[in-house]
Amino acid sequence: MDLKAYLTERCQIVDEALDRFLPTATELPASLHGSMRYSVFAGGKRVRPVLMLAACETVGGELKAALPAACAMEMIHTYSLIHDDLPAMDDDDFRRGNPTNHKVYGEATAILAGDALLTEAFILLSRDETGDPAAKLKVIHEIAAASGSRGMVGGQVVDMESEGKGEIDLATLSYIHTHKTGALIRASVRAGAILGGASADQLKAMTRYADAIGLAFQIADDILDVEGTTEELGKDAGSDEARGKATYPALMGLEASKQRAAELVDMALEALSVFDEKAEPLRLIASYIVKRKS
Amino acid sequence: MDLKAYLTERCQIVDEALDRFLPTATELPASLHGSMRYSVFAGGKRVRPVLMLAACETVGGELKAALPAACAMEMIHTYSLIHDDLPAMDDDDFRRGNPTNHKVYGEATAILAGDALLTEAFILLSRDETGDPAAKLKVIHEIAAASGSRGMVGGQVVDMESEGKGEIDLATLSYIHTHKTGALIRASVRAGAILGGASADQLKAMTRYADAIGLAFQIADDILDVEGTTEELGKDAGSDEARGKATYPALMGLEASKQRAAELVDMALEALSVFDEKAEPLRLIASYIVKRKS
Repeated sequence: MDLKAYLTERCQIVDEALDRFLPTATELPASLHGSMRYSVFAGGKRVRPVLMLAACETVGGELKAALPAACAMEMIHTYSLIHDDLPAMDDDDFRRGNPTNHKVYGEATAILAGDALLTEAFILLSRDETGDPAAKLKVIHEIAAASGSRGMVGGQVVDMESEGKGEIDLATLSYIHTHKTGALIRASVRAGAILGGASADQLKAMTRYADAIGLAFQIADDILDVEGTTEELGKDAGSDEARGKATYPALMGLEASKQRAAELVDMALEALSVFDEKAEPLRLIASYIVKRKS
Repeated sequence: MDLKAYLTERCQIVDEALDRFLPTATELPASLHGSMRYSVFAGGKRVRPVLMLAACETVGGELKAALPAACAMEMIHTYSLIHDDLPAMDDDDFRRGNPTNHKVYGEATAILAGDALLTEAFILLSRDETGDPAAKLKVIHEIAAASGSRGMVGGQVVDMESEGKGEIDLATLSYIHTHKTGALIRASVRAGAILGGASADQLKAMTRYADAIGLAFQIADDILDVEGTTEELGKDAGSDEARGKATYPALMGLEASKQRAAELVDMALEALSVFDEKAEPLRLIASYIVKRKS
């Protein structure tokens, strides 16, 4: 199986669905809808939706059962990036090589576009369609809890408060990562499994997989920030270090970080051992995390 | 029936439930949870939750069936106030006589507290409890749609873009009000009715009631901004005019605005004629809108 071709095909499916689910850029207020679409279609790799769709199919579900939720997850991820980039937060001018939302649409519209994308996610998740309402409610709860003050937003607050302190310990760094990025990855995989009709045991295995790749992904990101080039990353290389952000390489060294990432990938693959060949995409994605260049 | 005593009792029920549903101020990250609670307990009149509970009971439902959703609605209302007050938006230092969230917690935390409150609303709405999952999904959809780019956030964008232009017509002003404030009031009343088990006809009557009082409420607010004192309002009187905000009195005159508000209250009462004495609170609330001083 060719992972690159698979990811390209999946990105197309997700992009097409996002285009369908989002209000058009000409619908009033056009500035708002334009701003929402600008960031949603700014070159994201659709990691979370791809994981959700793959988890759904791994347990025997149909792709279309998880497609709205997969798009909702990407909207939540996008809103978090728009708000993170704001002057009051990370104050970033570029993201994936493009000007950030507030540089193009202004700060007020960027704040509101983020708010609207977060809200749009729940509009999408609660659409009246086929599917078991109880499973949908469970997925909404899963995704909301992962995104809130005990999940992603909480992680962002601790990350922000830790910046420049220089004295972050591993426990704090782990809190930041499991909350800021890990929670959404876990929710993506679990939501896909739930929508695909996973058994309790299958859901447990999926959760172990998700937690392992979530942390591996973040460590790999930290490593890339040290080793990648500005061109490859689409943002300034070494920017984490420059702003005194806590990272795994800074805390435990580059080699130990690489080793830890590799161990986590092994754990993720082990968790998938209960599944058949339908788990192949999830397996290849896990292995890819520590190999990617951007 | 004594409306004042009724509202006081209902506010207590809502406040108590909000206190129970929100993470405590000592739970980490404490700054975030403190910031969320600061604005939720900053003296709001709980208009939306009170309406939701009353609508639920009017159609024969139990108060507790709508209490989590009522609190969720107040969280969404509060998040919108926090974000509206930000320097990049209305740049307000005071709200209900207290320093605004970002003046106390800083801009970054205020943005994130708003994000977390919006998310917390959906955590609450999707809790696994008694109740029909299909009705809950419908309520989530109703509330999310009212809050998003085609509802409240859309209204805020158009309001912001119209400010200082001086050339706003009645159609634009009406768009702003039906979206920025009307949508949440409509969703509150409809959600209460749905959770209370309303028939299709009852839901229609409730929607007519909500649309009438929503607009009446906004016109009354505009009138108060002209006629109220700074002390009564807890914000600067005449502040709408000072910043060139479009208002009904500015557009159609003070007397015509008062007459329109009174007509809308009559329409609201007419819509309630299909209900029995259980609709008494909704009737008194409609009449109160044009009489209040703050």
